[in-house]
Amino acid sequence: MSDFQFEIVKHIKTLSTNAKGWSKEFNLVSWNKRAPKYDIREWDEEHLKMSKGITFTEDEIAELKEGLIDI
Amino acid sequence: MSDFQFEIVKHIKTLSTNAKGWSKEFNLVSWNKRAPKYDIREWDEEHLKMSKGITFTEDEIAELKEGLIDI
Repeated sequence: MSDFQFEIVKHIKTLSTNAKGWSKEFNLVSWNKRAPKYDIREWDEEHLKMSKGITFTEDEIAELKEGLIDI
Repeated sequence: MSDFQFEIVKHIKTLSTNAKGWSKEFNLVSWNKRAPKYDIREWDEEHLKMSKGITFTEDEIAELKEGLIDI
């Protein structure tokens, strides 16, 4: 994993935390020093291990916002 | 895959569509006939194949909404 870098640029919101201490979070994350992307995935308490997740562009976040208004 | 069932109960929003025709969608999906959950993942055009994704409880969706207001 030495060639894989990430930085949680901004923690936006914790959506939930499970019994094992992993939390589902909405963050702004930079992968391999690239421009940060919005990101939803689960993290361990130390934010060293992560689950597979989904990244979002600004446009996708705008659509998601609209979708959330409808429900 | 015969023991795996899903139904897109409600299509809420398409967030984006890529060059291969797969779209990132925000849906309400029932897995194996269980109560439907909010769900974000990518689907092929026929909605037969899917990527790994994230499901959300009502509470997680409420937190996500709050997070989206902040950005």
